[in-house]
Amino acid sequence: MRDVAVIGIGIQKWGELWERSLRDLWVEAALNAINDAGVDHIDSMYVGCMSGGLFVGQEHLSSLLADYLGVCPVPATRVESACASGGMALRSGFIEVASGLSDIVLVSGVEKMTDVDGGGATYALATAADAEYEVYQGATFPGLYAMVARDYMHRYGLTREQLAQVAVKNHDNGVLNPHAQFPMKMSLETVMNSTMIADPLRLMDCSPITDGAAAAILCPLEMARDLSKNPPIKVSGMGAATDRIALHDRPDFCEFRATVKAAEAAYKMAGVGPDEIDFAEVHDCFTIAELCVIEALGFFARGTAGQATAAGETARDGKKPINTSGGLKSKGHPVGATGIGQIHELVTQLRGTAGERQVAGVKRGLAQNMGGSGGSTVCHILEVV
Amino acid sequence: MRDVAVIGIGIQKWGELWERSLRDLWVEAALNAINDAGVDHIDSMYVGCMSGGLFVGQEHLSSLLADYLGVCPVPATRVESACASGGMALRSGFIEVASGLSDIVLVSGVEKMTDVDGGGATYALATAADAEYEVYQGATFPGLYAMVARDYMHRYGLTREQLAQVAVKNHDNGVLNPHAQFPMKMSLETVMNSTMIADPLRLMDCSPITDGAAAAILCPLEMARDLSKNPPIKVSGMGAATDRIALHDRPDFCEFRATVKAAEAAYKMAGVGPDEIDFAEVHDCFTIAELCVIEALGFFARGTAGQATAAGETARDGKKPINTSGGLKSKGHPVGATGIGQIHELVTQLRGTAGERQVAGVKRGLAQNMGGSGGSTVCHILEVV
Repeated sequence: MRDVAVIGIGIQKWGELWERSLRDLWVEAALNAINDAGVDHIDSMYVGCMSGGLFVGQEHLSSLLADYLGVCPVPATRVESACASGGMALRSGFIEVASGLSDIVLVSGVEKMTDVDGGGATYALATAADAEYEVYQGATFPGLYAMVARDYMHRYGLTREQLAQVAVKNHDNGVLNPHAQFPMKMSLETVMNSTMIADPLRLMDCSPITDGAAAAILCPLEMARDLSKNPPIKVSGMGAATDRIALHDRPDFCEFRATVKAAEAAYKMAGVGPDEIDFAEVHDCFTIAELCVIEALGFFARGTAGQATAAGETARDGKKPINTSGGLKSKGHPVGATGIGQIHELVTQLRGTAGERQVAGVKRGLAQNMGGSGGSTVCHILEVV
Repeated sequence: MRDVAVIGIGIQKWGELWERSLRDLWVEAALNAINDAGVDHIDSMYVGCMSGGLFVGQEHLSSLLADYLGVCPVPATRVESACASGGMALRSGFIEVASGLSDIVLVSGVEKMTDVDGGGATYALATAADAEYEVYQGATFPGLYAMVARDYMHRYGLTREQLAQVAVKNHDNGVLNPHAQFPMKMSLETVMNSTMIADPLRLMDCSPITDGAAAAILCPLEMARDLSKNPPIKVSGMGAATDRIALHDRPDFCEFRATVKAAEAAYKMAGVGPDEIDFAEVHDCFTIAELCVIEALGFFARGTAGQATAAGETARDGKKPINTSGGLKSKGHPVGATGIGQIHELVTQLRGTAGERQVAGVKRGLAQNMGGSGGSTVCHILEVV
C-alpha cells in the first residue's frame, strides 16, 4: 500500500443556512479544498452523507455532486455510516489512493438538515439506531445517550458539573473558529440551567442540527510535494470497526467498543500509542460521548475523563487538547460532514495555521468519528512529515 | 494492485416479501455467500443500498448488518449510487482487496421496497433523479426513460415490437432462474397490450419493485485456491463513471456516456474489447435502457440494438447473450441489490452451474450496473482463470 497524504482542505461556515441547498454547500467546500491543494483535476471522489433521502429528498449524490462540481465522468461514490459517514468517506478515499488505482482523490462530507418538514430531522437521525428494536419503541438519540450518562454517573460518580465542563470547554474553543455554527462562550451556569432534554442531558449537552460541508484532497505521499505547495500531512493510521447497533445489546453502555477497536487498528498502522497523540478531534454529539470516547481512545483511564475535563486537561493548554475546533457541540454537527470537518481541524493545526486556537508544537493528531450510539467508528491519525 | 477473485456467491428468492425484513433478506444472502466460499471469517464488508432511509426508515446499515451477521467488530461500509449501489459496493470491495488492506471481503446489496407507505416507493426511487430540477417538476423514471425511448424511435426507427422483444427475451431467460421474482414467459402480445405507463413505455417495459439481497466473497486471486474449493473467477476489469444527473442536461438522450466511460476503463484494465465478452448482465430497468446500454458497451452499433434483439442476437443462443438471469425485468430489481445480483449470474454462468439457462462455453462476462437515468455507471468484467 502506498502512503497517503492530505494536501488540501476546504470548508464553509456551518449553520442554519436556509438560503443554500445541499449542492451549493458541498460545491463550496469541494472547490475550497481543490483550490487549497492547487490541483487541476481529481481522479475520483467520495461523499459522506447520512441521509440525503430523508433530509432533502435527494439520493444519488455521486452523480449529482460530480455534475455540479463539473468533473463528470470522474467516478464518484457516496458512503454512509450514519454520523461516521464523513470519516468512512476518508477511509474509502485513503484505500483508493493507497491501492494505486487513483492518485488525486477528493473526500468529502455534507448534510443539509435544517429545512426538513416538522419533526423530520429527529426522525431522520433516529434511523441511525435500530429502527425496529429501538426507534419503534420510542428511543431517540438524546434518550439513548442519557442512559449512557446515567450509567456513567452511577458507576463512576461523574457529577453534572463535570459533564457540563465538556460543553464549556468546547465552546471556549469554538468561539475562535470562524466556521463554527455557535461561536459563543457558554458559562457553566448556562449549561447547567439549560432546558432538560433527556435527564440528565440538557440542551447545552447536545450538539446542534446543522447545514454544512467539508472536503479534503488526498494523494500519494510521494507525489505530495510535486502536486501542492502545502506541507503534506500524512495519514499515518486508519482503523474502522462496528459494534452491536442497539445500546441494549451491549454488555457495557459506557465502553464504546467500536472506538476501542478502530483506535487499536489506527495506532497499530501508525506505530504509535495514545500517549504519542498530541491532540484529537472526537465525536462529542453529546457531552457524555466525549468522556466515553477519550477513555476508549486510551487517553484517560475508565471513569476519570470527567475529572480530567474539569481539571482542564482537555483544554487547548491542557496535556491532551480535545476538540480544538469547538467540536460537534460548538462547531456544529452536519452529520455526514462531521468526519471531514474533523480532518479540516487536524490539518489546520498540523500546518500551524489555526490562528488564536493554535496549539503550539503539535505534530500528530487523531480524529474519531462515530455513528449512532457507537455502532460504527472510524479513526484516523494524521501527522507532519 | 493485487488481482482479485470472486470465490463465493449468495442470493435468495427475490419478490414481494412482506413477511421478511431488510436484515433477514440480507443475512440470508450473506450467509449463502460465506457458505458457498467456505470461508470461516471476513475482514471487511460493503453493503450497497439505495435508500434504507426512505424505504424502511433504517440507515446505518454498516452497523446493523455487521451486527445481525454476527461479525462485529469487522469494518462495514454502506455505499450508495442509486440503482448502481450494488456494483459500487463491489468496486469498493475490489479496491480494498487489491490494496492489500484486507484479504476476505464480503460485498453485497439489499433493498426492501414493497411495504413502504402509499406512493412511497415511487417517491423514494425518484430521489435518484435531480430532486430540484427534475422531480419537483413532475418527472418520474418511467417518464424520463419514455423520453429516451421516444427520441430513440424518432432517430433510429425503432419499432414498438422491437422494444417489446427485450421484455420477451428477458422473461424467456427468467423463467429458468429459481431466484427470479417473475419467472413466467411473456408473449409479445402481452407486452404490447399491457397498461400504458409513460408513452411509449407500457407496464411490461418496466422492471418491478422488489425485495431482495445478494452477496459475494472476494479475496486475492493468489489465495483463492487455498481459501475455497470453488473455481476462482477473476475480476479482470473494473470501471466507474458519472454523467450529468438530469436528462435535460445531456446533449444526446440515447447515449449513456457514463456507461461508455465505465466500459472503456473496464476493457482497458482487462485488456480486452467488447468482441471478447461472451455474455453480459446489463441494467434493463426499462426495455429501452437495455438497447441503449448494449450500444454504449460497444456490442452493437448505435441505432441497431432493437433490430439485433428482434433477430435473436441477444438471446441465450445468440451471438451476444444479454441478461441470461432474466435481467431486472424478470429477475426483479431490488435496487441496491441488483449490481450484486448481476455478479451472481456471471459467476454462476462462468462456473457452468446455470442449469437450463447455461450458455455453453462462456469464459468472460461483463456486468453493467447503472444509477438513475444513467448519471452513474459501474462495469465489471469477470473471467475464468
